[in-house]
Amino acid sequence: MLVQGTPTRTIRPVVEGGKTWVEIIDQTRLPHAFILRRLATPEDAMEAIAVMRVRGAPLIGATAAYGMALAADRDASDAGMAQAGEGLVATRPTAVNLGWGVERMLWRLLPLPVSERSPAAWAEAATLCEEDVEQNRAIGRHGLDLIRAAWKKAARSRPVNILTHCNAGWLATVDWGTALAPVFAAHEAGVPVHVWVDETRPRNQGASLTAWELAQAGIPHTVIADNAGGHLMQHGRVDLCIVGTDRVAANGDVANKIGTYLKALAANDCGVPFYVAAPGPSIDFRLAEGRDIPIEERDAGEVARIQGLAEDGSLVSVRLVPEGSACANPAFDVTPARLVSGLITERGVCAADRAALAELFPERT
Amino acid sequence: MLVQGTPTRTIRPVVEGGKTWVEIIDQTRLPHAFILRRLATPEDAMEAIAVMRVRGAPLIGATAAYGMALAADRDASDAGMAQAGEGLVATRPTAVNLGWGVERMLWRLLPLPVSERSPAAWAEAATLCEEDVEQNRAIGRHGLDLIRAAWKKAARSRPVNILTHCNAGWLATVDWGTALAPVFAAHEAGVPVHVWVDETRPRNQGASLTAWELAQAGIPHTVIADNAGGHLMQHGRVDLCIVGTDRVAANGDVANKIGTYLKALAANDCGVPFYVAAPGPSIDFRLAEGRDIPIEERDAGEVARIQGLAEDGSLVSVRLVPEGSACANPAFDVTPARLVSGLITERGVCAADRAALAELFPERT
Repeated sequence: MLVQGTPTRTIRPVVEGGKTWVEIIDQTRLPHAFILRRLATPEDAMEAIAVMRVRGAPLIGATAAYGMALAADRDASDAGMAQAGEGLVATRPTAVNLGWGVERMLWRLLPLPVSERSPAAWAEAATLCEEDVEQNRAIGRHGLDLIRAAWKKAARSRPVNILTHCNAGWLATVDWGTALAPVFAAHEAGVPVHVWVDETRPRNQGASLTAWELAQAGIPHTVIADNAGGHLMQHGRVDLCIVGTDRVAANGDVANKIGTYLKALAANDCGVPFYVAAPGPSIDFRLAEGRDIPIEERDAGEVARIQGLAEDGSLVSVRLVPEGSACANPAFDVTPARLVSGLITERGVCAADRAALAELFPERT
Repeated sequence: MLVQGTPTRTIRPVVEGGKTWVEIIDQTRLPHAFILRRLATPEDAMEAIAVMRVRGAPLIGATAAYGMALAADRDASDAGMAQAGEGLVATRPTAVNLGWGVERMLWRLLPLPVSERSPAAWAEAATLCEEDVEQNRAIGRHGLDLIRAAWKKAARSRPVNILTHCNAGWLATVDWGTALAPVFAAHEAGVPVHVWVDETRPRNQGASLTAWELAQAGIPHTVIADNAGGHLMQHGRVDLCIVGTDRVAANGDVANKIGTYLKALAANDCGVPFYVAAPGPSIDFRLAEGRDIPIEERDAGEVARIQGLAEDGSLVSVRLVPEGSACANPAFDVTPARLVSGLITERGVCAADRAALAELFPERT
């Protein structure tokens, strides 16, 4: 997508000084600063995933793949590959794409002679990224049909109001995004949209990343506290919800950023359709139900403090809770399939249930 | 309640230099600084309510009453009283206590000769405050029974986990609080409790006020993002929810801080009891349904920015959203009576419906 008019991706290889680096956008600095950062080692990739310089299930899958390529440059032996893979998988537990990306690289590389692994790793990571972009484009096309339908239902008299939680935009993927791909597609197609952006405490990926993406693309949007979405739905101010996912279980239960479950409940209570944009690699057919998805508990400091832009233009972290008050920080929750109107996959929109998923992805069940 | 060991109320008259002032805790400075502030005129009282130096339905009712007393000191004529009353009522639209407090003062004062109004006003405001404290004590006793029942249900094997939203503690009232009165009562009675404190964006009354109150009282608590409560309820980590209210309609619909509706939905979905602590003055028998309650839309800057404590100990306001992104800030939502397990009033716990409310408050219907 465009950053100040320049086509940009969240991750790409850069060759310089005879070495291939991986260049990422440091998302911890957005929306106040746009900073590119280079990863030189698999440990750099692990750190970037752990502290969320890169985040979003598809993008951490892509970063893991490039992390394996960086590892292959250093030690392409079976042991070297396995060690890097374990380190990458251990960074974050909830998104299935991380393990999926590493496994895919190992499947591709381990059968090859050690000497051929490095170039094959860079090629495979690039292929994985291209596939991500194509999947997201397809999700955009299928989701656009839903937005068009909502526009028609509103007699084309006003913009379609879409609520989203967290950031499942292009910054969460290699390009285009998952939940926001239909929004970008609608904007391109001339279907007027307005996005309600949940700020998404504690890390505020909505206020900092989704708002920034939409502003860059010139798409009308309004940031709201996470508390506000239910009230807006009660008053008919949301036509549909679209969120991303970190892992869909085989029965259609959806793990996504903490708070998603609350919005799904409100949508269900208010008769607002609730869609989840789920590319194939985010669907975990090995997991029977959502209750089996491991939920990451992150640092309590993310609740106790927040970073923002001070008057003098510097980034400042401020404390929000009294000293001596404990905080807890579960990072994801699971929305039961019964609250999901449909999954928007690259192969089309399907019901959030075992049969529909199996029909769409027969080769994986 | 105690502040660093000293019994303290949120509001009180102070006589100095031949004049009576009204002293309040400036709640915009908590939890990082405990600052008392004096109000000298009805306009000071209006400003304190509007910028939320005082907040919470019962406390803004009490502040309005003292604002009328300050007005009576300056101009106790019918016109002077009416003008002050109109100014006070206009400060915030959602809480019914504001209009109730002003009306009560006018009923008391207007029949009196102008010369007698000032002392009568100070006396009536003090009476109103004492009644608030007694109502809250009674709510504490009735709510304690609910907490005891939850403790018994857990076989007295662990603390009772209570989730609350926003601040309906003693800082929201003259003393004791509404939703937290049962928590303070349980703590005093030796029933172990642990409180999940929703931070309550955008103004963070949970993280800043409720956490501070509980820390001062030595009650175990954990601050969480507003997004987290549903997940905790799904996993059996909440025994009951207790929240306050700004206005209960005659049918039992409850207006309270934005996001309350989402927690009520989750409690309902997870089988967790959801109680609303509602003193009589917060019940509006003239209003048929929750949909008729006016919902305050506050300054978008409250979403765009947040204030916290910087490393150097100063209070700093930081910007969270990109320049050029709009924000919206509805301050309350309405929880339908069907999601409310019961109302905890000073006269006992009753169902959230017209008949039960009328039975408990026959003189008002």
